[in-house]
Amino acid sequence: MYGLMQEVPLTVDSILRRARSVFAAREVVSRRDDGQLHRTSYGEVAARAERLMGALHALGVRPGDRVATLAWNSHRHLEAYFAVPCLGAVLHTVNVRLTREQIAWVVRHAGDRVVLVDRSLVPALQAALPDLPSDLRYVVFDDDGRGAAAALPGALDYEALLATAAPLPALPVLDERAAAGLCYTSGTTGEPKGVLYSHRSTVLHAFGCGMADSLGIAQRDCVLPVVPMFHVNAWGLPYACALVGSKLVLPGSHLGGDALAALLEQERVTFAAGVPTIWNLVLQSQRRRRRDLSALRRIVLGGAPAPRALVEAWQAECGVPITHAWGMTETSPVGACTHAGSTGLAPDDPADFTLREKPGRPVPGLEAKVVGDDGRELPWDGASSGELCVRGPWVASAYFGIAAHEAFADAGWFRTGDMATIDADGRIAITDRKKDLIKSRGEWISSNALENAALRCDGVLEAAVVARPDALRDEAPVLFVVARDAAAPPSAHALVAWLGASFPRWQLPRPEDVHVVDAIPKTSVGKIDKKLLRRRLREQQP
Amino acid sequence: MYGLMQEVPLTVDSILRRARSVFAAREVVSRRDDGQLHRTSYGEVAARAERLMGALHALGVRPGDRVATLAWNSHRHLEAYFAVPCLGAVLHTVNVRLTREQIAWVVRHAGDRVVLVDRSLVPALQAALPDLPSDLRYVVFDDDGRGAAAALPGALDYEALLATAAPLPALPVLDERAAAGLCYTSGTTGEPKGVLYSHRSTVLHAFGCGMADSLGIAQRDCVLPVVPMFHVNAWGLPYACALVGSKLVLPGSHLGGDALAALLEQERVTFAAGVPTIWNLVLQSQRRRRRDLSALRRIVLGGAPAPRALVEAWQAECGVPITHAWGMTETSPVGACTHAGSTGLAPDDPADFTLREKPGRPVPGLEAKVVGDDGRELPWDGASSGELCVRGPWVASAYFGIAAHEAFADAGWFRTGDMATIDADGRIAITDRKKDLIKSRGEWISSNALENAALRCDGVLEAAVVARPDALRDEAPVLFVVARDAAAPPSAHALVAWLGASFPRWQLPRPEDVHVVDAIPKTSVGKIDKKLLRRRLREQQP
Repeated sequence: MYGLMQEVPLTVDSILRRARSVFAAREVVSRRDDGQLHRTSYGEVAARAERLMGALHALGVRPGDRVATLAWNSHRHLEAYFAVPCLGAVLHTVNVRLTREQIAWVVRHAGDRVVLVDRSLVPALQAALPDLPSDLRYVVFDDDGRGAAAALPGALDYEALLATAAPLPALPVLDERAAAGLCYTSGTTGEPKGVLYSHRSTVLHAFGCGMADSLGIAQRDCVLPVVPMFHVNAWGLPYACALVGSKLVLPGSHLGGDALAALLEQERVTFAAGVPTIWNLVLQSQRRRRRDLSALRRIVLGGAPAPRALVEAWQAECGVPITHAWGMTETSPVGACTHAGSTGLAPDDPADFTLREKPGRPVPGLEAKVVGDDGRELPWDGASSGELCVRGPWVASAYFGIAAHEAFADAGWFRTGDMATIDADGRIAITDRKKDLIKSRGEWISSNALENAALRCDGVLEAAVVARPDALRDEAPVLFVVARDAAAPPSAHALVAWLGASFPRWQLPRPEDVHVVDAIPKTSVGKIDKKLLRRRLREQQP
Repeated sequence: MYGLMQEVPLTVDSILRRARSVFAAREVVSRRDDGQLHRTSYGEVAARAERLMGALHALGVRPGDRVATLAWNSHRHLEAYFAVPCLGAVLHTVNVRLTREQIAWVVRHAGDRVVLVDRSLVPALQAALPDLPSDLRYVVFDDDGRGAAAALPGALDYEALLATAAPLPALPVLDERAAAGLCYTSGTTGEPKGVLYSHRSTVLHAFGCGMADSLGIAQRDCVLPVVPMFHVNAWGLPYACALVGSKLVLPGSHLGGDALAALLEQERVTFAAGVPTIWNLVLQSQRRRRRDLSALRRIVLGGAPAPRALVEAWQAECGVPITHAWGMTETSPVGACTHAGSTGLAPDDPADFTLREKPGRPVPGLEAKVVGDDGRELPWDGASSGELCVRGPWVASAYFGIAAHEAFADAGWFRTGDMATIDADGRIAITDRKKDLIKSRGEWISSNALENAALRCDGVLEAAVVARPDALRDEAPVLFVVARDAAAPPSAHALVAWLGASFPRWQLPRPEDVHVVDAIPKTSVGKIDKKLLRRRLREQQP
């Protein structure tokens, strides 16, 4: 016997319709490249998104095609967030921090047909041009309407395109299981891996985010996603905000502490989200020049564990509680979080801080378990540590274009690669990372890739990379090498320069973090003992 | 191109799994028939629900079968809420206030195989026995374990049944579009109409309820659904509470003002929901004996328009903001609501009261429009009044067993029968029931507006307005009021004069059409029974 409810698909256009009608007047504020604020509304964003759909269709974009963005957080990027999926196409948000080789790789792998690119990021694309498909179309987001940068072949100016575009006479009927978005994770080893979000997962994730114990945003909130829109859909905030009608403040490329603090004050932001580094920068700025952040009721911090000192300082100095959220590209990303005072403790109670050091309970809609090396589920005793596995309608079941991957070997579950415990109350605590990843400002650095490159350097016999805590970068890579010839070891500067040829600057170790040692410790089975290396680092005895 | 997300169906068992694991220790409190409180937990409720599934299966219940309940709000009823749908069967919640003929009618219409019935309600079933199917099985909820009432043929005792039942070795795999629940609307005319909820609609409604601007309940809430579990799934609260982990307090059959006030105080209830009548009773109780309701942060009131005087009194006297929610059996039911302070006003600001007199914006997931007599959509100008139509994944598309109905004539939309305006901000204001409007010389008169004005008049406790045929005016309004003090009722002339300050002369009832009565008749769900009032008028017996 089947239910007699309306067949209303969970598709992104339902969010667009809501934003256009119910929240037409609600404000969307973007910081331009020149620092000025651009003010628009969901109604205007929706109207322009409809024209963008017409323009993309005229450029030949059809359902299932991929359209890339290479852009900071702005109202134009938001327009693409709606136009591309509502056209039935797939929004591929390219990480602006990739190298030109990586940019070319993901654009080719995704099979993008069009790239929407910020004027300030045109040089990055220009550098990648030799490796990009010749039939790729470029559309440039430009504040000043000076026309498209001539640097890209056949590039169009976004504003000029919208000015002449007409909305489509009829919008495609969307299937909730059709793809809506594509985001590549910088990954652990080897090539980046793409996660293909469906309309259904995107809409359900927006609902999940709007739940009181998840992100808990509401219509009266003013939300500042510092987390970039090229990074897991800015944690889903653009869709969640449009669904619930929050005012949206988009910081553009201005991610310094002072610029963000000024924006928080000026727009009376109530809810902000970003990686720990950002909130450290804003805190430093506050210490230099006290701004009125009294409207700010919650900061959500994710992408890396929340340093307790940072959480305590924000509470004590600014009266702002910090929420630690856990998630991954493969989980859309919001997977677990614990708000200040969520179990009735005062937000400045040390017991509440302790509770918030764990991500806590999975958000409604997600299920979690921890499994041992043998794949068997471990008890929820708060002590048994195993690999965290998650399940839910906004969790990936495969990587785009990869036939099989060990992360999906446990049928119906995604193996996160994070080691965790779960207690009797269902609270997850991350204990370690299964693989040796380094997370710098919310982005992964692969220790394995750095090691392999170091090993290709003349004079290097062995190499190991581990993370050390870093105030600015959250984590920084530290390189240990054993010289091939102890009498003529490679210099730290030479090693960093060598790595610089293959990795973006932000992934490199500093020269003082390169240690030439006599031997690298090994485990009993001959693997590099990274645990021991980390301990030596902590004890300052590299 | 299709998304690569996990295929996790939106089924009620996902909520049960969450309640059983993440919120196992969270409390569920029920008031027994003898007034004592029974304390259990979601973990125990889930374990017993699993045994109930085994027991129902042993009784022959199979996927698609209907299992009825005739019960007040209790932990046993909650167990049935999970066991029946998770078995793949359909939970048919029978309204205990129906007549014996109506009970027999809905049980036969639904094709129920088993009825789970409160011991205190056995006499109602007993009276209906001659009209009930002979193969119907009865299971009796009994606090005292004195065994099943012999009054019902072959009746089993629920506790005895659970004691010997074993969980099923494997649970059925559920389809999210399969039916999970069945609720009959008492309707305005003709036979009751059944709404068949799917797993998908039930789960999505629970998500919708958990959104901050919807019901906005959270893990730390203690929720008292006074609204009965036989009435539109107690507004979805049992499922929503289990999803987010709220403590649940179930009042049993004790719905008097004093009993409820005591429960609110004793369990430190933070969130309560029910029809206006209930909150009037509790307010009267508070005035007699002041209890500590300081934990109560929100009352949600629905099922009938919220009288402003009641909203103001709760705020002024108890400091508790009232939310006016709009919904219907056909909308699962939560459709729209506006919380105190949701747009930044103080909860005691008169402008905030005014805002809350409207249901406000549709909750995330639902869409609304108003249409004129010709079926064409009317503008969102806050003035054009038409029939409210809604769309969304938890809105009915048909009535159970009825091939076609005018309410579903507008493809893709449900015609609510409520007259409403929508303003530019998407705020719905109900102007009247389509069938309760009074048409005088071609102009509409809102019975609802007259009732609200009458309720603001000194000395008026309750008010109802219906139409009577009138030779001169086509229809004329007739006002019924119940005096606050029976010894000093307001005069008809004084009431008309009071209304004359707010309404044009032609909209006023004549003094001879004002009737001060001892009581205003109510329907089985506590709404004013206008059908009966009209009949009394026809029979000249106001």
